Amino acid sequence: MHIAVTGAAGFLGQRLIRQLLERGQLRGQTISRLTLLDQVEVDVPDSGDVDIVSFAVDITAPGAFNEMLDARPDVIYHLAAVVSSAAEGDLDLGLAVNLDATRALLEGCRHRDLCATRLIMASSVAAYGGELPETLDDMTALHPQNSYGAQKAVSELLINDYSRRGLIDGLVLRLPTIVIRPGRPNAAASSFASSIMREPLNGEEAVCPVPTDLELFVMSPGKVVEALVHGAEVDGEAVGPFRAFMLPGITVSVADMIEALRSVAGSEAVDRIRHEPDPRIQSIVGSWPTRFHTRRADALGFKRDRDFRDILQAFQEERH
Amino acid sequence: MHIAVTGAAGFLGQRLIRQLLERGQLRGQTISRLTLLDQVEVDVPDSGDVDIVSFAVDITAPGAFNEMLDARPDVIYHLAAVVSSAAEGDLDLGLAVNLDATRALLEGCRHRDLCATRLIMASSVAAYGGELPETLDDMTALHPQNSYGAQKAVSELLINDYSRRGLIDGLVLRLPTIVIRPGRPNAAASSFASSIMREPLNGEEAVCPVPTDLELFVMSPGKVVEALVHGAEVDGEAVGPFRAFMLPGITVSVADMIEALRSVAGSEAVDRIRHEPDPRIQSIVGSWPTRFHTRRADALGFKRDRDFRDILQAFQEERH
Repeated sequence: MHIAVTGAAGFLGQRLIRQLLERGQLRGQTISRLTLLDQVEVDVPDSGDVDIVSFAVDITAPGAFNEMLDARPDVIYHLAAVVSSAAEGDLDLGLAVNLDATRALLEGCRHRDLCATRLIMASSVAAYGGELPETLDDMTALHPQNSYGAQKAVSELLINDYSRRGLIDGLVLRLPTIVIRPGRPNAAASSFASSIMREPLNGEEAVCPVPTDLELFVMSPGKVVEALVHGAEVDGEAVGPFRAFMLPGITVSVADMIEALRSVAGSEAVDRIRHEPDPRIQSIVGSWPTRFHTRRADALGFKRDRDFRDILQAFQEERH
Repeated sequence: MHIAVTGAAGFLGQRLIRQLLERGQLRGQTISRLTLLDQVEVDVPDSGDVDIVSFAVDITAPGAFNEMLDARPDVIYHLAAVVSSAAEGDLDLGLAVNLDATRALLEGCRHRDLCATRLIMASSVAAYGGELPETLDDMTALHPQNSYGAQKAVSELLINDYSRRGLIDGLVLRLPTIVIRPGRPNAAASSFASSIMREPLNGEEAVCPVPTDLELFVMSPGKVVEALVHGAEVDGEAVGPFRAFMLPGITVSVADMIEALRSVAGSEAVDRIRHEPDPRIQSIVGSWPTRFHTRRADALGFKRDRDFRDILQAFQEERH
């Protein structure tokens, strides 16, 4: 079993790689090789018997996927992306990374006859938007109101069409907002959602750019990685005639999150949150829906977090 | 008022051009110039005072839109496309014409600051597919089960995103199956729907590749051209947060169409239809939905045909 990961140096990539090495197998087969791609050098963990090959490449460069695809991976996790706020700030960069590179990856698979390779791309709740029903489901149209979401929705359509034509065995998982991410704030419009928990827990100040009644549809890093692993193992045929769907998140308001923080770390932690409205962040994050019936994902065995306190406690435990 | 048309030599393009010249004005302004693009020489009609400039270009070639866009049209009708069956047969061609050329057009507008130019693209009922509700509406997801539909859906997302960013004033009209087209059968999977009416009326044989209980969502050429004209005049802001929607068609079965033919031209016309099932055509056309609530289009003033007999009679009148 040979698994390739793009965006391998990223937060999800790193976590997924650790999880795969811990499991040692996928689809009932021993993992023998990992091919890791990122624009920066990937931190290669202790690998045991697994052959780990790592490439630092710009995925927008011609032939960037050649070496990875020549090695004929059985599963490809395509996690490399320009995140929401950056894609909104730079249309060309977003199109190059989020659309053209996905297409180059699909073409690379096609021209090597990798039709049995499971290609899993991470898409996002940001692909929804516009005038939405109160609760969304698998048949709700994608009317993205941000360029990141539009580019992800485009990639979904292409991956579905290449899968339907039998050129690849694709799957697209739309991720809820992932909280709590470790590390530092990034350019994602949703970055604050981790920041307002993580920084106060570290004794630092954080900025909350949205009103506290704003709701988010969230999933913990642990559950997202579980979903990525599960995504390699679900039967493609069972997914139905469209290979993209929303993962099961839970709905929380910023106020709920802050109250959970208070119960876990006290009011002095909460006092470290500074409220500074940012209309740009609000307009992006505010367009993302927060209530879903995720029937397709549920039927395929993808799991949600129990509640936000659970997510917060899991984060706390990992820190210690 | 300067209007540009791609795919100008096509059936819809030709009809639209005649209609525009007859009206003489659009958005309350006198039409002073038409720029016509197609891969073949466009049949330029008698133009009166209108300056008509025609380019025979391959729209997949670099810079194909340069001359058209340098002349800064107020309205662009983007009708050039590789139709359903051809796009299914040749993925590269479909992607080049239906996706890359649309993108080149958008980029061309962007780099010339044509942000007030109304760009109208024809999309299609073929963009729907998969597990669909019995009646679709403006919020039904696009899960195309053919490459033409996938490429149109991708272009919709890009046009919407460029419009949202204020780079262009885009509008995408999803066309029902157009019947009855004049001329000869083409490579569209739905070509039979015109053929089984047109050829018998001309005393010729026609092949029906689908079962007679198959339903279609149809619009007459006259109503489609009316919609294209109306599309230039509707207020972009009034369209709402997504610039693509389905036009109002009517639902008819192939059997209904055949009975209308019998009532207009007698049983000897009907006898000229040969029934030869074609699984490939059936699988494409059979994936297209046939019942819609077109609330957005209705609210914006787009009109449907009254019934199929009307469509058939209008076609008959035009022939004489």
